[in-house]
Amino acid sequence: MIGNVLVAQSGGPTSVINASLVGVVQKAKELGVQRIFGGLNGIEGILQEKLVVLSAEHPADIEAVQYRPGAILGGCRYQIKDPKPEGSELKRLFSILKKYDIRYFFYIGGNDSMDTAQKIHVAAQKLKVDLRVIGVPKTIDNDLFGTDHCPGFGSCAKYLITSVVEAGIHTASMYTAEPVTILVTVGRNAGWLAGACGLARREKNEAPHIVLFPEIPFEEDRFLEKVKSVYEEVGGVFIVTGEGLRSRAGTYITARYDGLSTDAFGHPLLGDVPITLKHLIEENLRLRTRWIKPDICQQAALHMASRVDLEEARMCGESAVQLAVQNGESGYMVTIERVEGRGDTTYASRCGKVPLSAVANVDRYVPRHFIDTEGFFPSEEFLHYANPLIQGEVPIRMKDGFPYYPTLRLKHVRYPE
Amino acid sequence: MIGNVLVAQSGGPTSVINASLVGVVQKAKELGVQRIFGGLNGIEGILQEKLVVLSAEHPADIEAVQYRPGAILGGCRYQIKDPKPEGSELKRLFSILKKYDIRYFFYIGGNDSMDTAQKIHVAAQKLKVDLRVIGVPKTIDNDLFGTDHCPGFGSCAKYLITSVVEAGIHTASMYTAEPVTILVTVGRNAGWLAGACGLARREKNEAPHIVLFPEIPFEEDRFLEKVKSVYEEVGGVFIVTGEGLRSRAGTYITARYDGLSTDAFGHPLLGDVPITLKHLIEENLRLRTRWIKPDICQQAALHMASRVDLEEARMCGESAVQLAVQNGESGYMVTIERVEGRGDTTYASRCGKVPLSAVANVDRYVPRHFIDTEGFFPSEEFLHYANPLIQGEVPIRMKDGFPYYPTLRLKHVRYPE
Repeated sequence: MIGNVLVAQSGGPTSVINASLVGVVQKAKELGVQRIFGGLNGIEGILQEKLVVLSAEHPADIEAVQYRPGAILGGCRYQIKDPKPEGSELKRLFSILKKYDIRYFFYIGGNDSMDTAQKIHVAAQKLKVDLRVIGVPKTIDNDLFGTDHCPGFGSCAKYLITSVVEAGIHTASMYTAEPVTILVTVGRNAGWLAGACGLARREKNEAPHIVLFPEIPFEEDRFLEKVKSVYEEVGGVFIVTGEGLRSRAGTYITARYDGLSTDAFGHPLLGDVPITLKHLIEENLRLRTRWIKPDICQQAALHMASRVDLEEARMCGESAVQLAVQNGESGYMVTIERVEGRGDTTYASRCGKVPLSAVANVDRYVPRHFIDTEGFFPSEEFLHYANPLIQGEVPIRMKDGFPYYPTLRLKHVRYPE
Repeated sequence: MIGNVLVAQSGGPTSVINASLVGVVQKAKELGVQRIFGGLNGIEGILQEKLVVLSAEHPADIEAVQYRPGAILGGCRYQIKDPKPEGSELKRLFSILKKYDIRYFFYIGGNDSMDTAQKIHVAAQKLKVDLRVIGVPKTIDNDLFGTDHCPGFGSCAKYLITSVVEAGIHTASMYTAEPVTILVTVGRNAGWLAGACGLARREKNEAPHIVLFPEIPFEEDRFLEKVKSVYEEVGGVFIVTGEGLRSRAGTYITARYDGLSTDAFGHPLLGDVPITLKHLIEENLRLRTRWIKPDICQQAALHMASRVDLEEARMCGESAVQLAVQNGESGYMVTIERVEGRGDTTYASRCGKVPLSAVANVDRYVPRHFIDTEGFFPSEEFLHYANPLIQGEVPIRMKDGFPYYPTLRLKHVRYPE
């Protein structure tokens, strides 16, 4: 076996992003790779030569890492902008890869990260550098092209569904005083997470009553009418919404409240969608409205992670190594294919692949038939799709009354050591 | 045994408010009370004669209720305003109590509810009505006078601590892109929950780094200086804050952003404290800031409830019945007394009592010695105080991948049946 492995994590972490890393490391060891480097903070840290030697860690310590949220190597929001191989960033990257004799690069991340992986792959081909590049999917948003679903999505959905069930029971006790509740999920342009929360409703009149998808243009009048009709029928209303709601004209609805529309960096404050909805409901219907913003907790709640999701995340890491090291392939992202059944015990999945070029910077939206006719709830088909992905629990070690997540004390390496 | 029992729940529910109800019902049965009525939606529903017969339910079904969040009888935000026995509300109340031959009234709630209980107790004495009134403490805010702590607090704290641990690990992976995170707890005037989150920090540099107490006047400059110094030392900052931060002059800091300061009903939007802090930090320090608002989830997360808390909540319900039915007492709230140890395995507690008149409408704040000298973190003494209250887990039934909380189908009764 010739050459070493480099693996890195990119973008915002999920509860199971470390499971993918563990999959990469253990499979690479199994296939006889000698040195497995981890790049800290994705491509941003790699360019600063911030590497650690994962193959030097005890296998049991590596194994334990999948039971820790966050990204053990650190994530980043850094992209390689210039695709030219002779550009300063790629030039620097290839000199570092050469120095550490790295022939396989695995990048665990979302759309942006796949774009970076694709640029590296193309540049390596042009330069005739012996490098295999494989992307490992990761995103709670579930919006990557070419895969049935994304590692990270199921665990995030499971936590949100649990939150909706519990908060839904709670608020139903308080309809007389506080009739409306809004929970905002992550998901700027795609409503996968908001839609999955529909699973929380086991019986008629249970939460959630309304799910707002960024894919459906937001119409104030229709929305208020729907809230009113649920309120009259049920006595209270539980709304789950994605972040990036837009009018038919395409403007974010948060733009209505100017003081709120952007942060100090000029980015739209989409997390504030529930504030906009609250104002709308209170001003027009005079119904007191509370709201919940789980934000990062939904990406980090390993205590309510899906075992199916964790195992698939690891499987994707393993598959990436098989593709590159065993089959010598490059320029692909690993995918998850659903091989049997939907929403029942026959669910099973396996890994496939899709060219990085097809994935990079493409968003996958919730298809229209996954949303009911009225546009305010996921369809049965969506619920059957999402149901198998939240199954099974992940064992958590409790200590002193709350979860204990051991960490790895990683040491940087720099050559010569 | 003469006369029936009426029990009701008031205010916002906690994860363990139903355990107190179960304690009342089972102990009353044990003591031979024939009919145990539940009042729906607290005093608000009782005045509308919305009663259910809890003693008619199967004991196993009653027992199961403590493993369901929310208030099984419904809560309310309704208070009896007029303390005069001849006032229309109390007059109506006593006629209903007479009709159902109710001699014992148990009210599970917080400060406001204790005020209502006290008014009923005093009026009953004046009218020489044979009625024993006992309050059962309930509040995640932990701000009731006369008790070491309040049922509901420990479970809420345990959930928040778990959230801080997980989100803290997550954000530490992302310091290079998103260095600051704020989590806002419930707690308008008292910082008990924010302070308890200090337990999440097991090691130096772990989250949380800063805890903001409503008890400490907020000083913009000192706060920004503290954020800056943590950022420089750690590379990122995790802040936990209570809701009602005020300047030394006593104005809520949210008032700075006028568009945000009140809702459509004119109430201050204290939940928006993190938005104010975010603006402050981004404008002055140029550090990108995210924020988390668990809101109702922290009151409802039975899946991360404290067993100690659940058992104490039940114990308080049982003790209330002993006080009234066995000892013939009235006009008290049950309290929890800490009998041994702090922060170690020797923790134990028992119930005591305090006059309702001492509790009604009084807030209990975090004492100054429970906050460190600088004012930005709980003291060791606070952490020792809070630690035993979050211990032990509550078994949850999982079904289809998320918690299943069975309910009781309660039927209203009206006399004559």
